[in-house]
Amino acid sequence: MLGSLFSPDSVAVIGASRTPGKLGHAVLKNIVDCGFKGPVYPVNPAAREILGLRCYPDLDSIGERIDLAVIMIPAARVPEAVSDCARRGVKAVVVISAGFRETGHDGLVAEKEMARIASENNMALLGPNCLGLINTRTPLNASFAGAMPLKGNISLMSQSGALCTAILDMSFERKLGFSSFVSLGNKAQLNEVDFLDYWSNDPDTKVVLAYLEGISDGGKFMKAARTFTRKKPLIAIKAGVTNAGSKAVSSHTGSLAGSERAYEAAFKQAGVIRAESVADLFDMASSLVNQPLPGNDQIAVVTNAGGPGIMATDAIERAGLRLANLSQETMKRLAAELPGAASVINPVDVLGDALAERYRLALDALIDDRNVGAIIVILTPQIMTQVEETARVVASRSEKQAKTILACFMGKPHVEAGIRILNDNRVPNYAIPERAVISLKAMVCQKKRQERPKRRITRITIPRKPIKEVFDGARERGQLEIGETGAQKVLEACGIPTPASRLCRTPDEAVKFAEDIGYPVVLKIASPDILHKTDIGGVKTGVTGSQEVRDSFDLLVLRTLRYMPDVEIWGCLVQKQVEGGTETILGMNRDPQFGPLIMFGLGGIYVEALKDVAFRIAPLSRRDARQMIEEIRSSRLLYGVRGRPRSDIDALEDAILRISQLVTDFPEIVELDINRLVVFPEGQGVTGLDMRMVITGQ
Amino acid sequence: MLGSLFSPDSVAVIGASRTPGKLGHAVLKNIVDCGFKGPVYPVNPAAREILGLRCYPDLDSIGERIDLAVIMIPAARVPEAVSDCARRGVKAVVVISAGFRETGHDGLVAEKEMARIASENNMALLGPNCLGLINTRTPLNASFAGAMPLKGNISLMSQSGALCTAILDMSFERKLGFSSFVSLGNKAQLNEVDFLDYWSNDPDTKVVLAYLEGISDGGKFMKAARTFTRKKPLIAIKAGVTNAGSKAVSSHTGSLAGSERAYEAAFKQAGVIRAESVADLFDMASSLVNQPLPGNDQIAVVTNAGGPGIMATDAIERAGLRLANLSQETMKRLAAELPGAASVINPVDVLGDALAERYRLALDALIDDRNVGAIIVILTPQIMTQVEETARVVASRSEKQAKTILACFMGKPHVEAGIRILNDNRVPNYAIPERAVISLKAMVCQKKRQERPKRRITRITIPRKPIKEVFDGARERGQLEIGETGAQKVLEACGIPTPASRLCRTPDEAVKFAEDIGYPVVLKIASPDILHKTDIGGVKTGVTGSQEVRDSFDLLVLRTLRYMPDVEIWGCLVQKQVEGGTETILGMNRDPQFGPLIMFGLGGIYVEALKDVAFRIAPLSRRDARQMIEEIRSSRLLYGVRGRPRSDIDALEDAILRISQLVTDFPEIVELDINRLVVFPEGQGVTGLDMRMVITGQ
Repeated sequence: MLGSLFSPDSVAVIGASRTPGKLGHAVLKNIVDCGFKGPVYPVNPAAREILGLRCYPDLDSIGERIDLAVIMIPAARVPEAVSDCARRGVKAVVVISAGFRETGHDGLVAEKEMARIASENNMALLGPNCLGLINTRTPLNASFAGAMPLKGNISLMSQSGALCTAILDMSFERKLGFSSFVSLGNKAQLNEVDFLDYWSNDPDTKVVLAYLEGISDGGKFMKAARTFTRKKPLIAIKAGVTNAGSKAVSSHTGSLAGSERAYEAAFKQAGVIRAESVADLFDMASSLVNQPLPGNDQIAVVTNAGGPGIMATDAIERAGLRLANLSQETMKRLAAELPGAASVINPVDVLGDALAERYRLALDALIDDRNVGAIIVILTPQIMTQVEETARVVASRSEKQAKTILACFMGKPHVEAGIRILNDNRVPNYAIPERAVISLKAMVCQKKRQERPKRRITRITIPRKPIKEVFDGARERGQLEIGETGAQKVLEACGIPTPASRLCRTPDEAVKFAEDIGYPVVLKIASPDILHKTDIGGVKTGVTGSQEVRDSFDLLVLRTLRYMPDVEIWGCLVQKQVEGGTETILGMNRDPQFGPLIMFGLGGIYVEALKDVAFRIAPLSRRDARQMIEEIRSSRLLYGVRGRPRSDIDALEDAILRISQLVTDFPEIVELDINRLVVFPEGQGVTGLDMRMVITGQ
Repeated sequence: MLGSLFSPDSVAVIGASRTPGKLGHAVLKNIVDCGFKGPVYPVNPAAREILGLRCYPDLDSIGERIDLAVIMIPAARVPEAVSDCARRGVKAVVVISAGFRETGHDGLVAEKEMARIASENNMALLGPNCLGLINTRTPLNASFAGAMPLKGNISLMSQSGALCTAILDMSFERKLGFSSFVSLGNKAQLNEVDFLDYWSNDPDTKVVLAYLEGISDGGKFMKAARTFTRKKPLIAIKAGVTNAGSKAVSSHTGSLAGSERAYEAAFKQAGVIRAESVADLFDMASSLVNQPLPGNDQIAVVTNAGGPGIMATDAIERAGLRLANLSQETMKRLAAELPGAASVINPVDVLGDALAERYRLALDALIDDRNVGAIIVILTPQIMTQVEETARVVASRSEKQAKTILACFMGKPHVEAGIRILNDNRVPNYAIPERAVISLKAMVCQKKRQERPKRRITRITIPRKPIKEVFDGARERGQLEIGETGAQKVLEACGIPTPASRLCRTPDEAVKFAEDIGYPVVLKIASPDILHKTDIGGVKTGVTGSQEVRDSFDLLVLRTLRYMPDVEIWGCLVQKQVEGGTETILGMNRDPQFGPLIMFGLGGIYVEALKDVAFRIAPLSRRDARQMIEEIRSSRLLYGVRGRPRSDIDALEDAILRISQLVTDFPEIVELDINRLVVFPEGQGVTGLDMRMVITGQ
């Protein structure tokens, strides 16, 4: 379907205009000027000829096959035009006209109607309310952009048309070439997923850049992005990160989740490289499209100036990359070949008076060193510096693409000629070392992404029946929040241990059970009407003898009746008191875009005050679960620190996977908090305490 | 002294050369070409005339007054030349020659010798091993830089000469003008402090940029920077942040401190704005030198494109600034004047088809709004966009300097003409909104810095005698680590409460004291030979009765003797057991550069696993102490969270100030840890437990 959009045999321009300055003129002119090779049919009932082309009053009068139609007429008439296209067998339409979803309800209805027509007729529809699209290979410029981009291997999609124009304008200075350029507009039909799928198999696209404000379908996006990033890098800006506007929620997980956390998790899981600005997009794209991926995350720096070398080192460490440890052999070789004052330890300082030859010696040695994954070549223009000569040396060393080489020729007038040579030879140049490092970071991420073994979702069988029963029982009582007794059953069904406990109707029953399981025990008032037991003093911990069990039983019942005389009281829940272990929190909140967002963190103060938690979107792989545990800042506490034993990480990982499975199997679970999930020392498992859940009404 | 360096009446060039390409030629040519108005005397025994100037065999033969001498002869002969200069009454010398400290011990000796000569003769000395210096007002270019910078109000000092050349080269593109340009070199005599002091009173310098790798004297730097930043912004890159290379230390504070933490604290306390890259330097300088400081931290955005508006919003929140809440009046005015589809809520979207007039309407409304502290004007080049016209509107609104206005015209060929107009009218333009926001952040910091009331060091009188006694006693025993008993005395002398405790020699004595102070108590083995009691099981906590006191006393003594039969045992320390409160850690480590670096954080896991601590350099003001408490991520725990009471913050602040005073009064304290300083609920004070200290031998 997208083939006809990017490489149509013929194009009709509905709303072509004779008046320069009008969109209908600009788009037609772009199509003609870009060198499109097929027939172009302007459609405008009021004109006979535009830009030397015969103009048609309507589609029907064209009488030839039409592959692509570009529509730029007033919004009210667009749906009819789309209908006409469908009837005439047009394969793809680009609706540039605005005035739809963005204007309110009527616009949204019209937009949906035209998407329906397109889909029913197997016709691709881009827009409405967009800038159009460009393909530099066809070539086709079906947009009102002010220029045609340079030819290259980057494809871009943007939800902001204006940003497209700005990026296009900036790309000339950076000498970045594009394969295709797509303004997504309102995404009535085609959206980011369709283009990712298409570019995944497009040999002309090596890197995709995206500017996204929202994603149409989180699940489909993750699937498409996963497949795509396994082959090629996808660099995305997700704008609107801070106006999370989280709704009022009752769970810890809910209050810490929110759309930004969900996007962050989704991008991480799908291997999408996140850019924070247009500068990031450009910087990362220039290296990814021009240089091979680094062999490892160890970076070597060669420089003719100490200062910028130190700055590169600082940036490398800040980015979480490593300054390469040069091999003994490399250092010996450098020491033999460079002057005595040079530094042969990374960063390699070839000294201020270095001519091109010294750069060559250093570069050759670093390229041969297997420890080195990538090289940054820094040059500052000093009096004797051979800028162009050095650029040629760097270019020649990059030619074999044996190792990632990025340049940082610092300056402007004095280094311009050198930068031109670098650009012409696919060596990206960065104004400052910090920007080269940002690009290397993206490359290393992509490398790791491509090497990551294919993810395997861990399937765990969870019995449906006992859980269904709990949910149905709660619904029958008109409750959508599942209380402790029910939650405990659910946890047990999931295979997550909970402390031995029993609902005891009398003090005698309570004493008997307590003696069976052993002291200390906890008593909790059991009533279908009370969810927050602690708030009314309905919990007694640390009960250590039979008389105390009796006293506590009576106290809890009496106290509850005093506050709430009319509640139904079942008795008391007697529970083995859990001692020792590390308290964690495990929860889920359903994100409107991406679905079940799982949260993990250490309990108590860590989640409340420090918000030290990790998020992932379910279903999870074992690797996802492990990463969540390792990602929190306080994870060291689980791995054993200063006398604390190492926790049972395997059991914790297993519990996370089981909750992932639970919320995947039961979409009716809206939110869930196990606060506290106690993790015992290695080999001793976990225990789930105080679980809360909210389910849907049906 | 620096007057003669920047604006000499005459200049001698020692080591002037006839050969183009040589330093001695380049520097002389720069002095001549820059238009220096006084006499220039090349010195070279082998030449008669260079560049049309009469050449002298030596200084003596010049026979005229020489203000400044620039020296570029081989290192071995430099000290003698400096001597000659001193003898001839030269007021300032710039030593460009390299081959000193950076080559090893002999070089360092020669360097110190020449600094001594200069200082004794009241002569200013810049370098050695530097690029030289430039002043655009004099004008004077006594450097081998490849060009003269544009004239302006920025002064720069850099410890990397090569970075100077790169910055200079880049500055042309950014149209940044300089007042002076100094390459610091090895800083044998003149260093960053001298230049800060000079520029503080230099009317031509409005902003100072610095690239520093190390600071010569931390205390002097802080003093100079404090004075300077109260008047003008100082933006500094501190390179080499990651190779902390912390030495082996035994205290918590020591292990978390390190030069990077000290620099961070020093910069914060002295109001220095930290830049992370040369790009930051440029971006921040362009706004600080051209625009007034913002009235507040509320930022308004006006844009013709939604996407970049959202990106600006994201950046504003990330930077800790605020998106301005426009007044009702402003919104009404915008609603009346802009088209219906425009957004009158910040970011103000004037829509893609906005002409210059719409920008004018929006800008005027925002300038009149008192809520707005600064404005970012974003423009993307769309077909109808009036780039130059809009630039002129922005320029005219900026002219009155009534409000901070930064521009972000995004693109290259299509916006270039507009950017030129902005530049010519002192409106800095940023390629992407994120960079404008970084600059605004720096401006807001500077504004706050200038408004900050003058800092007052809180002086607390601490009695010297009892503390001296403890130190002397320890030294007499040959111990430089002060044990618990001594530390408790020191704390008490400082006015920090410690739990009631007494050294008891017998079980009877211990029982008596325990009954006096009340249970529970802690018993600790007391021996001058044992510092780490816990390690040998020499502590018993939670002792609640007389028999238990007796048993514990015997147990501790017997256990100690079993492990260490030969130690001297004084008895047991009986101490009131502290219950409740929040555990914090307060410590000090002496930084080689900045002196006493005070650390504060929550105790236990927070400091060990999360490293959640704040640093400041003593002596502290009350504001410093308060900021340390507020700065840690876990500070919420002290201010009361989820049922926890608010801690006694005033008492904690007071304790921090007392420790600051202690380490200021006693420079012999090398490191100190109060781990744990227990903070009780409001009004109930603090208690210092488990203090350790290391002192110097004398």
